[in-house]
Formats: sequence, C-alpha cells, structure tokens
Amino acid sequence: MKIARFSHDSRIAFGIIDDGDLVVLGGDPMFAGYETTGERIPLADAALLAPSIPRSKVVAVGRNYREHAAELGNETPAEPLLFLKPNTSVIGPGDTIVLPPQSERVDFEGELAVIIGSITKNVAEADALDRAFGYTVANDVTARDLQKTDGQWARAKGFDSFCPLGPIIDTELDLASATITTRVNGDQKQHAPLSDMVYSVAAIIAYASSAFTLLPGDVILTGTPAGVGPIVSGDTVEVEVSGLGILSNPVLRR
Amino acid sequence: MKIARFSHDSRIAFGIIDDGDLVVLGGDPMFAGYETTGERIPLADAALLAPSIPRSKVVAVGRNYREHAAELGNETPAEPLLFLKPNTSVIGPGDTIVLPPQSERVDFEGELAVIIGSITKNVAEADALDRAFGYTVANDVTARDLQKTDGQWARAKGFDSFCPLGPIIDTELDLASATITTRVNGDQKQHAPLSDMVYSVAAIIAYASSAFTLLPGDVILTGTPAGVGPIVSGDTVEVEVSGLGILSNPVLRR
Repeated sequence: MKIARFSHDSRIAFGIIDDGDLVVLGGDPMFAGYETTGERIPLADAALLAPSIPRSKVVAVGRNYREHAAELGNETPAEPLLFLKPNTSVIGPGDTIVLPPQSERVDFEGELAVIIGSITKNVAEADALDRAFGYTVANDVTARDLQKTDGQWARAKGFDSFCPLGPIIDTELDLASATITTRVNGDQKQHAPLSDMVYSVAAIIAYASSAFTLLPGDVILTGTPAGVGPIVSGDTVEVEVSGLGILSNPVLRR
Repeated sequence: MKIARFSHDSRIAFGIIDDGDLVVLGGDPMFAGYETTGERIPLADAALLAPSIPRSKVVAVGRNYREHAAELGNETPAEPLLFLKPNTSVIGPGDTIVLPPQSERVDFEGELAVIIGSITKNVAEADALDRAFGYTVANDVTARDLQKTDGQWARAKGFDSFCPLGPIIDTELDLASATITTRVNGDQKQHAPLSDMVYSVAAIIAYASSAFTLLPGDVILTGTPAGVGPIVSGDTVEVEVSGLGILSNPVLRR
C-alpha cells in the first residue's frame, strides 16, 4: 500500500494512492488506522509533503556501504555507526535544500528511509522488520567541510532542510531486489542495490532499538552508497528507490 | 517565576510554585500562557515530572568548561561543539537512570539547561536570552566507554534515561552569580560558577540557532564543569544549580 501526506485546498491530510487518486484518510494512519473519509482527490491536484515529521528523532547510520566508506577513506565500522538528525531538518518532496552560509561544500547522500510503526525497544533482528510502518526515500544532506572540522556530525547533518523525505511511504518493499539511484541535474551519481548494505535494515532497527526507544513516526536512514558529491545553488537532486518513486529537491544558496 | 510540571491524582499539569503550593495552570505555559484554573495543590502532594519533553530536540554542547575539557585530554573547541540527545532520553526528577548492558562505564555530567520559549533562527547573541523561556537543571549522562569507541556521541549520550531534567523551570536566573554542583551519594564531585563557561548561554543559543531552527520546549544543555566521574548501580546523583534546586536521580543496573 502506498500512502502520501499531502496538502490540498489549505488542509493537510493523509491518503492512500489508488488508480491516480488519493483516497483521503481520517487521520495519521500510523496512529488512527486506515479509515477513509470517502473522499477522492486526483493525485495531480495535491501537493505531496514529507510523509512523516518524526515526533522524536531521525536516527541515521554512517558508512553502511563498503565502497562509500572507502571513498571517504574510512573503514567499515565494527558496529552500526549511529547519529541523529533533528526533525527541524525534515523537508518534503519539491522543497528547497538551502545551503547554509557556514559551509562551502554541501553533499547529497541518497538513502533508503524506514518509518517506524510501533513503540520499539530491544527488538530482535528477526522481528525488527515487523516494526517498520513502511519505507520512503531520503537525502542525508551533509556539509562535508563542517563534518570534518566539527568532529561531531550534529550540525553538519542537521541544518534546516538537510533531511528531504518522500515522495510517499510504501508499506511494502522488496529489500532484496530494490536499488537506489541518485541523480544531479539528470546525471547519475550513485547507483547500488540495497542488498549492498553492510548492516541490513533489520540489523539497524534492532541495533538502534538497543539504545533508544523508537517511537511511531521515527525515521531511520540506512546509509548511502558510493558516489557522494557536491550540490550547488541551482542544482536539482533526485534520489530514487525502485518501487518508492523519486524524491526531487532543488538547491539554493540565498 | 518557578514553574513545575507534575502529576497529581492521575492527571498531568503545569503549575506555578507559590508559597508551598502549585497554582494549577490551564495548559503548557510555553504555548497557553499563565491562565490558572484557580486550583491550588500542596507541592508535597504532587510528583514533579521533567519540566519539558522537547517536541524537537535536546541540543548539547561539549567541552564548554576549560578544566573539564582538559581533564579528558581535550582542547577547548574553536566554536561551540554541538551534539544532539533524543527526547526519548529525557526523564524527570526522582526517575531512575538505567545503566545499559552495552556500557561498563557511565558518567554523570551536571549541567545548566535552557528551555527555549519561541521559534528561534539566526538570533543575535545580544537578543538570544530573550528566547529562553527559562532554566532548569540537567544531567548529561554519558557512557564514557562507548563515547570513545563509537566516535559519534549519539548512542553514548542518547540511551533511554540519559537526560534527567528538573526539578522545576525558573523563568529567571542570574547567570553571572549562579553556581553548579554535582554530588554522588552526598559527596561533592563538581562545583563551578556558571560564569566559567567558555561560550556563554547567549552565545550557545545564537550559535545553535544559526544551524537549527529552535522550537518552544527545545532544551539546550550548556556543558559540564570539571570533576566528571562514574555512577554505579545503587548510587544517587544530585545536580544543583543555585536558585533552581536539586535534580536527584537514583542509578540502577537491571
């Protein structure tokens, strides 16, 4: 099932995507289930929004594709390398990535995102995928220069607009066969099967839940493959996960 | 004005502390102002809770007292060193700090916390204190071993129960004269004037707001002075900021 959060006629709602329409839901399906209002809106008439604004946190994983770790001169970590992005960094499909004046080098990082569906603490890896409400596409935008000078990544990866999410949530995804692709102005920069991850989606959820209680709506970014590079004002960056659609965002330096 | 969040007769509310009573407020004063319900509850009959559960983030600052940076072998950073703690790490006064099985060395870090009162982005240092709703006491509990092995501090400082806050918010505090003291089982471990901070409270708010939009209820931890050390199961750790009271939490390894 594909679910979108959208605005239409100055209200914000969730809908199930069905035959080119949005079947409007009565509430946030993560909390209120799938009861519909009976209304249908043509998908083309709605503006899609970030499908989740986490009430608690965006947990992300660094160096989770071997070739990407190597391209930045790093080892693959002995355990998943967790960091946090604030929910104020989340933007939706089509929203603008704003380059901050503090940085001279901002990079895209295309990633698969997991939306957590239930309160999760110390879940076993074998049960972990049951805690995913669904999947969406993310861009773990990173001020590469500040990432190095700060040491801690909170600022470099936490600026406003540095976590594009969307365009929709799919409650199902074949993790074994899906691929991720990133394009800047139409040129392919990253392309890898999700199966290249060092730590699987299930392993990451289990590991994160051994430290933090995960709440419904929390987002987990699962790492970026090789090929990261800069984005500059005027670029458009697209991240696509097969089956989940394309997350496209323009880039602007004010 | 001193404000507490509390539970009493199985409801949760905010109140103004007045002459040994809680004057009950109609809502969260950060959003709903100071209208009272007219009810008074003896302070002794209420259980105090964490005075803020941030909807967005806990921003914290590392190495912000010179002697503390030195005791861990670090330089004072050239800019405030920001990191994030998730809101799932927040507990209240009297709640238990639970030592996670992953760590063999958990430390207390007594700190002054600022509660942000209004949406704040790119505020000038001269105006920054106006954005503070008030001040409370915090313990930036840290798994010191994992902080070193992980490199990124998100996990080591983000475990559930690793951000005690309380006991109350005071909307005013004389930052120039107040002191912070930490005791473990009654023995003094940390004691310093807040004026020893490398970056002032105003400078930290301004700097954080140059990266992140700060939202009402967000919490900023302003760093810990020298004297950090371990806590073990059975300990009680107290952090006191003069004028703000004592934040006391027992420690347990399950």
